[in-house]
Amino acid sequence: MRNIVPGATISRLPVYLRALGDFPPSQTTCSSEQLATLAGVNSAQVRKDLSYLGTHGTRGVGYDIEQLRTQLRKALGLERQYGVMIVGGGNLGSALGNYGGFAPWGFDVRAVVDADPAKHDTVIAGLVVEPLDHLEQIVGERVIEIAIIATPATAAQEVADRLTAAGVQSILNFAPTVIDVDPSVEVRRVDLSTELQILTYHLHHSAEATGS
Amino acid sequence: MRNIVPGATISRLPVYLRALGDFPPSQTTCSSEQLATLAGVNSAQVRKDLSYLGTHGTRGVGYDIEQLRTQLRKALGLERQYGVMIVGGGNLGSALGNYGGFAPWGFDVRAVVDADPAKHDTVIAGLVVEPLDHLEQIVGERVIEIAIIATPATAAQEVADRLTAAGVQSILNFAPTVIDVDPSVEVRRVDLSTELQILTYHLHHSAEATGS
Repeated sequence: MRNIVPGATISRLPVYLRALGDFPPSQTTCSSEQLATLAGVNSAQVRKDLSYLGTHGTRGVGYDIEQLRTQLRKALGLERQYGVMIVGGGNLGSALGNYGGFAPWGFDVRAVVDADPAKHDTVIAGLVVEPLDHLEQIVGERVIEIAIIATPATAAQEVADRLTAAGVQSILNFAPTVIDVDPSVEVRRVDLSTELQILTYHLHHSAEATGS
Repeated sequence: MRNIVPGATISRLPVYLRALGDFPPSQTTCSSEQLATLAGVNSAQVRKDLSYLGTHGTRGVGYDIEQLRTQLRKALGLERQYGVMIVGGGNLGSALGNYGGFAPWGFDVRAVVDADPAKHDTVIAGLVVEPLDHLEQIVGERVIEIAIIATPATAAQEVADRLTAAGVQSILNFAPTVIDVDPSVEVRRVDLSTELQILTYHLHHSAEATGS
């Protein structure tokens, strides 16, 4: 499957997986239209995306929800645990550490580090905040595969350099800046203002529609 | 433009706008390929998406960056300020209140409310946390157009009901649950685990490639 699945399809797979969780437990099959509505795309897109997994619904029945869930989890590599480190123990790092949405998917937050000595020995989500200096040691000892950067923008590049030098291949960057790493490292940048801008698109155009 | 722009295109417009900010200030034009690389899509998609704005690059030159920025800002309704309320003054609400990425786009956080009396009178991003009971009054008096729900999952639906009853038409939901509102209200759900799952896709498939 690798190399032939478009990036846009990959980024929709978690959305489909999450949408499956929105069906009532009593429902065992779903149509591409139902899945499309929950995922916010059109049904032709759903069918095309899922065909990359080798999954085709049954005519008149749709998709078997449990089977589709298993296939999506398998495609996304969610059948095992991943060691996660959060770099930055401020409000955002704390919020991410305490976010209840990671653990059910196998994301195991194993460390929170921060450059500020005032934060050391405070506790976030049951973890004692550790010095940034220990980053390399922690990555090796606790098998950290994914790092979340929740530092100020000015610190992000240096942190990314240290993480990749220590062998981390996957970075989720919340700092509002671009980080430059080796192309072999997968970086996802989360910009919280993007979602707000999609809301303003709709506010703006509905205001036009009503003439207000 | 309204009604004919696909939802997927709308959700990429903020990504293009952000990508334009990644070009060096000395660069005045960009190709669809350059923009595509920064936005993480292919160049045909960029050209198609921008054609909905009536924007076509010049052959051999590409897009004028400043002009494109203006057109994107206009399409997204970013030429004015929006009053924003954050519901929930915990770690996530604090992180969002202090997030530096909202203000430059005209998102003006005017209130943070919380149900917990212990949080009242604490300060987040220069704003005193106010009682949830004041929600309706604040929405009216401070012209709140966008609400960000950063409450526990159990509180989210009731908060959404109160917000929409008070006239809020746009909601960004960070609570890990589905909220059910009138279809006229635009809701965007942010699930922070989605981005991690895209990372695991790549981790999983690169492990397959190397046989590890």
